[in-house]
Amino acid sequence: MIKRFSYITEKEAFKRITKIFSLHVLKLETIPITEAYGRILSENLVSQTNLPQRDLSHFDGYAIKAVDTKDGSVQNPIYFTVIDKLYPGQIPRCKVQHGEAVYITTGSSLPKGTNSIVAVEATKIVNNNQIEVRSNVNPYEHVIRRGSDIEKGETLLRKGQKIRVQDLNLLATLRIGKINVVQKPIVAIICVGDELTDNIDEIGVEKIVNSHRYTVSAMIQELGGKPVYLGISPDKVTKIKKKVEEGLSRADIVLLIGGSSMGNKDITLEAVDSIGKPGIIIHGLKRKPGRVSGFAVVKNKPVIILPGLSHSLIVGFYTFVFPFLLFMTGLSWANRQLIFKAKIIKQISFTSFAPFEHVTFVNAKRTQKGYLADPCIGGSSSIGTLVRANAFIITSAGKRIVKAGEEVEVHLLPGFFSLNDIFTTKT
Amino acid sequence: MIKRFSYITEKEAFKRITKIFSLHVLKLETIPITEAYGRILSENLVSQTNLPQRDLSHFDGYAIKAVDTKDGSVQNPIYFTVIDKLYPGQIPRCKVQHGEAVYITTGSSLPKGTNSIVAVEATKIVNNNQIEVRSNVNPYEHVIRRGSDIEKGETLLRKGQKIRVQDLNLLATLRIGKINVVQKPIVAIICVGDELTDNIDEIGVEKIVNSHRYTVSAMIQELGGKPVYLGISPDKVTKIKKKVEEGLSRADIVLLIGGSSMGNKDITLEAVDSIGKPGIIIHGLKRKPGRVSGFAVVKNKPVIILPGLSHSLIVGFYTFVFPFLLFMTGLSWANRQLIFKAKIIKQISFTSFAPFEHVTFVNAKRTQKGYLADPCIGGSSSIGTLVRANAFIITSAGKRIVKAGEEVEVHLLPGFFSLNDIFTTKT
Repeated sequence: MIKRFSYITEKEAFKRITKIFSLHVLKLETIPITEAYGRILSENLVSQTNLPQRDLSHFDGYAIKAVDTKDGSVQNPIYFTVIDKLYPGQIPRCKVQHGEAVYITTGSSLPKGTNSIVAVEATKIVNNNQIEVRSNVNPYEHVIRRGSDIEKGETLLRKGQKIRVQDLNLLATLRIGKINVVQKPIVAIICVGDELTDNIDEIGVEKIVNSHRYTVSAMIQELGGKPVYLGISPDKVTKIKKKVEEGLSRADIVLLIGGSSMGNKDITLEAVDSIGKPGIIIHGLKRKPGRVSGFAVVKNKPVIILPGLSHSLIVGFYTFVFPFLLFMTGLSWANRQLIFKAKIIKQISFTSFAPFEHVTFVNAKRTQKGYLADPCIGGSSSIGTLVRANAFIITSAGKRIVKAGEEVEVHLLPGFFSLNDIFTTKT
Repeated sequence: MIKRFSYITEKEAFKRITKIFSLHVLKLETIPITEAYGRILSENLVSQTNLPQRDLSHFDGYAIKAVDTKDGSVQNPIYFTVIDKLYPGQIPRCKVQHGEAVYITTGSSLPKGTNSIVAVEATKIVNNNQIEVRSNVNPYEHVIRRGSDIEKGETLLRKGQKIRVQDLNLLATLRIGKINVVQKPIVAIICVGDELTDNIDEIGVEKIVNSHRYTVSAMIQELGGKPVYLGISPDKVTKIKKKVEEGLSRADIVLLIGGSSMGNKDITLEAVDSIGKPGIIIHGLKRKPGRVSGFAVVKNKPVIILPGLSHSLIVGFYTFVFPFLLFMTGLSWANRQLIFKAKIIKQISFTSFAPFEHVTFVNAKRTQKGYLADPCIGGSSSIGTLVRANAFIITSAGKRIVKAGEEVEVHLLPGFFSLNDIFTTKT
């Protein structure tokens, strides 16, 4: 069993976790492309075909052998016999010989034996089935070459990539109706606390509404996971243990919210540790709020322990759950950081916990003066602070003051911001 | 009936459309907060309560009347009789008189008659139910004031705002289990073209897979709408008309894809115009690709006509559908622009269509040198170009060259990019 309140940095935590879970991979599944948007590819997609599949005409004109026009000029017109007509989607069946031409419309496949298009306006019909060409046409003139858009063997999409809108276009065009993706991670949510209720209409202050289930579920969905809410456990080891066991049997990750600090008598940790080895591998993060977050491994599955105060919960989620969910789908731990630089507009100062990083919620906005971050100050359970904020900054351990005007890195949190906060240009 | 190919700017189009649709509002609905994430509020949310609802203790200590300690000092200790104990969630029933104190733990409500907390460590128990205080305690010392987090009457969330993760926390904490939101706009999709098939496994080049249904559906979902695919219509006025009528009866917006240009004999426009007045109000956009996009109003509903080539379709969607979907939910037309500045890394030049804006797809990335945009050049139906791109730039009409190193505005398209393209910092 790990020492409680043994505070480590995020980097150390990452090392400790990835040492155990480097081989952990979610199951794969095959899905139709109607369901593919936003899913994570589990393998590289290599084109099995050229696009276009054949040389296509770029203009309305005549398909010919370019070599037939090599002596062509105004003084020396060349004559061709038109033997066929071609439209888009048709597979050309004719084979063109020297001196022959095929009428062809934009987007149609070139017939066998031809390698060039002479545009309609560069020809003259001399009788019913004969045209005159008064120039030297280069090979592949006005031809969209086979494979010029996509080449057979080209790697188009990569393992670990999220399917975007244009990728759906690609898949359909290549006639790939089904793809292999990583299954959505199933995340069990257990909230711990005698004081909690899920009955939102209950009157009185005796019970506190378990608001965390809503926020955590939404964040999991935002990150591509499937939340499964297992309800509230009272502050009792056997009850917590039972719920964690249920979570381990139904989910890929178990989140335990609350009961992780001193005041709560550590019973969440005790319950998790009692289920199996190695149990708690991290308890304590050098980051405040969020310092009483923990990470356990039980029955080869991760059990992440998050503090019950709103701000602490979000920081714990950002530090452990956010990267771990991406990590499970094959992305790197660092890959989750959505950061941009902004100037802080009010001084912030820290007095306690010198060896800890400090997280400060901010409202970040793009303005005429560039990106600005306005600190939202409030107690670590203040809801007002969170509602005013859309991001946070992390101040290094030991730094006591961030001065007004100082440049900071703003971290975007999943589901906490609107893209318009960051990008809107009013026109 | 409007003149065909009468090209106008986006701004003119906006004026023409909002003149007709300024009063168009989607229906509202009441939903539980479990379904609220990402939905658009249809009314301001004003707090009906203070948060905290009562003054709370910020420490473990004793609740007293501050005035009782006004002469307190090391030389002059003040004595209090402890008459009760209070824990979080309890409604205090006692009323405290001068000389009395109540033991109170962090987060508990202050009992009547008290206005201050003296911390446990600043007291001494002198006998079973008596404590000694050797200092002057200020009013509201160690007290979290009623309403200090959220004040009754405060506007917390605004009409038109998308519900974020932290807003769910707020709603649950305020015991608001249901909210009023704007219904998701239902968008009917009709694809027009004899050459199209939905049978992705069909072999041969005779038919082209209707890839647009997948991309357009995903973009609509990404923007919070509900796509309803009505299938492929052959190039026949009566058939198109029938599908548009079905769309008008089932959806809030109808999208018609393909058949809008010269080559296609304008039959899409003819079909729409034949249904009712005013019919086509826009046909032609001073933007390329995308210039044959159109906008019609039939039976008081918008019918948006989009070109069938991939790049044109996306530009048409971005110009008309993207803002219109947001507009329907009460957001401003300009509000949809997700723009940031980047340096173009390769020169691009334009030769034709001088009075038109030019759209160039780019791959935009955050690098050590700031934001860079790499132009992805290809024909207006090149899939490879779209797959390499994650955004586009719009070059003003008349401008013929964008030089390497020039700063451009990069437009993010719904569902086309990963946030990591723009924000990732590798650590």
